Formats: sequence, structure tokens, C-alpha cells
Amino acid sequence: MRRRGLLATSAALATFPRPAGAGCPEPRGTGDLLVVVERARGSVLVAESTRRTILGRIEGLGDLSHASMVFSRDARYAFVFGRDGGLSKVDLVERRLRARIVQAGNAIGGAIGRDGRIVAVANYEPGGVRLFDAESLDPLLEIPAIGADGRRSKVVGLVDTADGGFAFALFDAGEIWLLDVTDLAEPRITRFAGVGSLPYDGNVTADGRFYLAGLFGEDGVVLVDLWHPEAGARRILDGYGRGEAPLPVYKMPHLEGWGTAGEHLFLPAVGRHEVLAVDRRSWREAARIPVLGQPVFVVVRPDGREAWVSFAHPDNGKIQILDLERFAVAATLSPGRAILHLEFTPRGDQVWLSARDDDRVIVMDPRRREVLAHLPAEKPSGIFSTARAHRIGS
Amino acid sequence: MRRRGLLATSAALATFPRPAGAGCPEPRGTGDLLVVVERARGSVLVAESTRRTILGRIEGLGDLSHASMVFSRDARYAFVFGRDGGLSKVDLVERRLRARIVQAGNAIGGAIGRDGRIVAVANYEPGGVRLFDAESLDPLLEIPAIGADGRRSKVVGLVDTADGGFAFALFDAGEIWLLDVTDLAEPRITRFAGVGSLPYDGNVTADGRFYLAGLFGEDGVVLVDLWHPEAGARRILDGYGRGEAPLPVYKMPHLEGWGTAGEHLFLPAVGRHEVLAVDRRSWREAARIPVLGQPVFVVVRPDGREAWVSFAHPDNGKIQILDLERFAVAATLSPGRAILHLEFTPRGDQVWLSARDDDRVIVMDPRRREVLAHLPAEKPSGIFSTARAHRIGS
Repeated sequence: MRRRGLLATSAALATFPRPAGAGCPEPRGTGDLLVVVERARGSVLVAESTRRTILGRIEGLGDLSHASMVFSRDARYAFVFGRDGGLSKVDLVERRLRARIVQAGNAIGGAIGRDGRIVAVANYEPGGVRLFDAESLDPLLEIPAIGADGRRSKVVGLVDTADGGFAFALFDAGEIWLLDVTDLAEPRITRFAGVGSLPYDGNVTADGRFYLAGLFGEDGVVLVDLWHPEAGARRILDGYGRGEAPLPVYKMPHLEGWGTAGEHLFLPAVGRHEVLAVDRRSWREAARIPVLGQPVFVVVRPDGREAWVSFAHPDNGKIQILDLERFAVAATLSPGRAILHLEFTPRGDQVWLSARDDDRVIVMDPRRREVLAHLPAEKPSGIFSTARAHRIGS
Repeated sequence: MRRRGLLATSAALATFPRPAGAGCPEPRGTGDLLVVVERARGSVLVAESTRRTILGRIEGLGDLSHASMVFSRDARYAFVFGRDGGLSKVDLVERRLRARIVQAGNAIGGAIGRDGRIVAVANYEPGGVRLFDAESLDPLLEIPAIGADGRRSKVVGLVDTADGGFAFALFDAGEIWLLDVTDLAEPRITRFAGVGSLPYDGNVTADGRFYLAGLFGEDGVVLVDLWHPEAGARRILDGYGRGEAPLPVYKMPHLEGWGTAGEHLFLPAVGRHEVLAVDRRSWREAARIPVLGQPVFVVVRPDGREAWVSFAHPDNGKIQILDLERFAVAATLSPGRAILHLEFTPRGDQVWLSARDDDRVIVMDPRRREVLAHLPAEKPSGIFSTARAHRIGS
């Protein structure tokens, strides 16, 4: 592991002072903000859900395909992770870029630690995790992801955990690592090797207890109980395919898009036209819900009664709404062209959908299933509510 | 029901303009704020958990014994409910009182509707619920709580529900009402009469599905499944006392202080030295956890692994930490004198405790169980994190 300072040469930090003559921003709270990624333009839109308006655009964030973000604990800043290895700190109150580094050649998301002081990035190239100071974006630590095979692996499924650390998976090596940063000078890693072939994404349950990684190389999911890491990694949902030939995969489903409702997890099934309901006590399959295409995001409405499912091409103009009591499709909508992502407001009065090929964000009432507003956006993709600042496993 | 305008005479609205010459406030997010009630002084402190400092005090809120509050959806405003019937709207960004009314003679808390437009107050005198416009505090609607017995009842346990309405209990009449305000001109009430003797408090599960009211007049709890109100109210945990003579009750436990973790609810037992674990699937008692005194608040750590329990006099200088996997006491602390309330930061890195008789708030690391800071406060009682803005059943 390399320590503070050694990484500085590879991460050129650019900071952006407040423009001269800028007046003070209109005082407002930051609890009702949503940030929309404009992938082609390399910008984000800051929007608010009270009056459903766009407040402003922040540009210069680089390549934002597959971009995701996390929020500072005060919900003032977004940390935007670009596919190009860019890490941008964006001020949602003053609506400007605050700092930006290109910290790797190819990255796939990140996390912010429980106390808000550390931002972590999962890198493909060079494979590993890098930690940065959330205030300054100064580098703190680098963890090369060298698996039991001695080779450097891509890192996926990086999340913060309830104990203040991070968890992630090594795609090539087939491992899961837990990173304890209680003492940054003595970081501790717990390794689970040989967990399965090609974990392609991972996530943690909302309470921070169970880390799950989906396997691309075989049928199944790996589970680690973070309360009892000594019990080791465990395979669940083995043989889910049961010899059936999977369909060609048009789009990898996102485990960050899974949902929890009551005693069940709802997962998009890789290469199948199904959403999988998993019992959280037994970790067994409780139901398979047939859907119209390959699911990408399964997003549970905040009250847990329904989930909204987005689909891969060629069905990405459709949304299906699942009734989670009956494990059945309740409605099929065609809200727009190329729905790339969707986000509920935290208490569920609205759902925001990105319609990339319509260049707009659609705001809907999730119960009446009616459009409340259209907001102009250039090729929008991910939408992120600042309420995520308060969740474990951001 | 009386409509908009008719109530105006009884609620004298005072609004407070921004003081002349006040500079613009330092830009900041509002996600890391906590508001501390100073009950004797009639003021609240606005504090933040990033650096753990007090940002300012807002005065003139009247009698704040038993005061509680909810937050606007943007987390800029707190709506403070006083025991004296006062409803104050406090600006946490500019840190000043924005508007204040005295809307009843005696009140017991309130709620804010899902979309943030309606603030509801539960009143003892005159018994009923009043709704106010969250922007202006103008009166919108009054619902007198006249039970099947034809008499006006005190209202308790008022919460917002996931469908945008409200639920509450009629203490004297022994009823539970659901209020649908989809159309304010045609509010609809669903009544459950004869649910049990003297419901003294009520709350809704975090997903907004189950409304539970504790009974003071008999052993048991009443449950309404808000997804299936047609199924009626249901009694659970009957005979919990099993003929044992309850202890004298020194302090009514708060159902708003219950906790949910995994498949269990944890409730303070009325008049007993026990915390009750209830299975959320069967609604049966799963365990009784003996504790050192009469529990008042049972507050689950955000990751669900522990709960912190506060106690009634004479044990209110102590806190017990429950291990929720083992259903057992893990530690006993003596953090200060007269611990009236406690609140976790949303991701669980800190817990804030009010030590009334020490005139301070104690900030602790919940895992190391170490004190991080002492903040001066005058007779502090309730502590409320702005992250509550994003929760159903606020």
C-alpha cells in the first residue's frame, strides 16, 4: 500500500475558486435536490423536487458515461465518479465545480465513508481502490487489488460499510475485500478469496449488514455477513439458471439498482427476462417475476409496495411496475425513449426518470402514474437524490 | 369539518421578516444539522455534526416541554410543536423564527405530509387535528376528533403515511383514524372504532405500512395494515402482562422512540423493566429483554445491530445498549444527568444525547462508546436530525 503523498504525482488536483463578483447564493436547504448526469456533455444538472425545476448546470466533468456520485454528509457537495477516472467535487449550493482530479485511467464508481471524511474510488486501470480526502481531494491511500493469483484485478462493487470501512470485489481474481480504515496509517484488509468467477458488481443491504456480489462467470451470488466475517463468504442462489441457456446479455444489470422491501430483496436476473425475489432470512429464491425484457434497474418505491423496473435495449423505452405483495407486474409504461435510470424522492411522492433520447427528465407521480413535469436535459443518464447522503452503502 | 378561512380567527399568525442589515448566511448544506430543544428557555439550538458545533440559537418558541418537530422536504425549515399549542416555523439556514401561531390550547406533536405542503398538529384541547400550509402556516382544515361516543377526544400518535395522508389515535374514544387529504376540499376519514382502551401513542413502521398504537387502559397494542385497511384493526401482544402487577409508571414510553431492526420491532414496555422484541411477520412477542429501569426511548442504531435505551426517573442518568442479535444488554453507561432524548446521525457515526441536568448535549461514538464532544445547551430535551425530512412517519 502506498501512503499519503506518494500518489500525489498521479493525481493532478485542479481547484476552482469562487468567481469574482459572484453574489451570495439564494439561501436554501439541500434536502430536496437531485443531480442529473448529462453524459455526453460532461455536465450535471442541479434540480429540486419541491417546485420541480432545474437550478443550474455545472460543466467540465469529463467523460460521464456510467457516471455515478455520492454526497457529502451535509448534502452540499456531490462527488462525481467518471468512467475516465475523473473525480469531481461539485458544490450544489454555489453550483460550481469545486475541485477535480483524474485519479486513474478507468474507474467504475465510488463511495463515501460513514463519517464523510474519505471518498473511495474503484478503479479498473490500474486495478485497485484509491482513497481521497473529501475536503481537499488530496490522495490518502492506494490499495492495489492484487488477488491470490498475484495479478492486479479490476475492482467493482465498492461500497461504504456501517462500521466506517469499505467493501469491494475483485472482478478478475474472484475475491471480496473488506477495508478497515480506522487508522489510515495501518489500514487492514480482510480477504475472501475464491468466492466465484467474475464478480461483476456488488452492493450492501440498507442496514450495511450483508454484502452481495453478483457473478458473471457462473450462476449465483456471493454473500458476506459483515457482522460475522469470520463465517466467510457464502454462495447463494446457486443453479438459478438450472441449465437453461441464458439469453445474450445486452446490458449488465446493476446491483446498485436492486431493491429491498419487507423480507425480500429484488434483483435483476442476468441475461433473463426475470426479476428475482430473494428471502432475506433464508437467502433462498422466493419468486421469479417474469418481465418484458432484460431488467437493468429494479428500484423499490420507498414504501416497499411496488418496484419500478427499467430494461436493456431494445426495451429501454418501457418501465414495468411490480406489485411486491403479489410478485407480479401491475403496469407497463412507455414514458420515453431510452430510460437509463430512475430515482424516487425519499418519501416516494415523485419518481424521476432519465429519457436519454428525448433529452429530458420525466417527473412522475408514482401512485397515479401520471407525468408531473418534463425537465430539459441533454442526454441524461444517472439521477441521484441528496437523500443518499444519509444512507449506508451509498 | 371546518374549511380554510374559518379557523383563521383562532390562529393568530405572527411572521418575522429578515432583520435589516443582516448579511447573507454562510453557504452550507443542511444535511448534517441537528436541532436541540431547550425546553425551559423556549428556544432551539441549531447544531451540525461534521465539526460538532452549535451554529446558533433561535428564541421565542413558547413552552417547549414535550416539544417535537418535523422538517421541510428541503431540510431548511423545522416545524416545532409546543405543548402549549404553539406551532413555530424556524429557518435553519438563516437561523431565525420565520412564523409562529398558537393553534390550540394543548397539543402533542405533529407531522408533515409526504409532499411537504401540509403540516398537521395533534391537539388535546380542543381534541382534534389541524392542518396548516407549510409555506405560510395559514390554516387549511380542522378535524374535530369526535368518537363513536359523540364526545371530543384528545388526539395522539399523529403521523404521516406513505400514501400522502395521516394516521392518528383518539385517546379517550379508543379509535384510530386515517385521513386522506388528496382533495383538501373533500377530506376522507376511515375510522376504526373500539380498538381498545386509551391508546396513548402511535407510530408507523419505517415503510409506512403498519400503524401501531399502544394501549394504556389494557395490555396490548393495536395494529392497522395501511395496505389493507379493509382488514380492520387488529390486536396484538394481548396478555403481555399475563396477570403480573405492572409497576407504577413514572414516564410514559414513547412509541415514536421504538426501533426496527431486521425482522423485529423493539418497544419499550409500559410500566415494566423490559424491552419487547416483536416479530414483524407474525406480530408475536419474540423476546423480552430485561433492562435496569422503565425504558422511555428505544433507539436503534442505523445499522440495526444495537439499540440504545433511555430510562424514566430515577434511572434517567443511565443508558443501556442492547445487542439485537442476542436480545441482551451489551453495556450500561452513565453519560450524564437526566438523559431525556437521544438521536443518531443518519449513518450511525455519532449519537447525540441530551443531559438536561448537566445543561449539555453529549456527542458519542456509538461503537467505541466514547465521548466526542460536549456542547453547551440550556436544559436540553429533544434532539432531531434533519435527515428525518426524508423518512415516512416523521
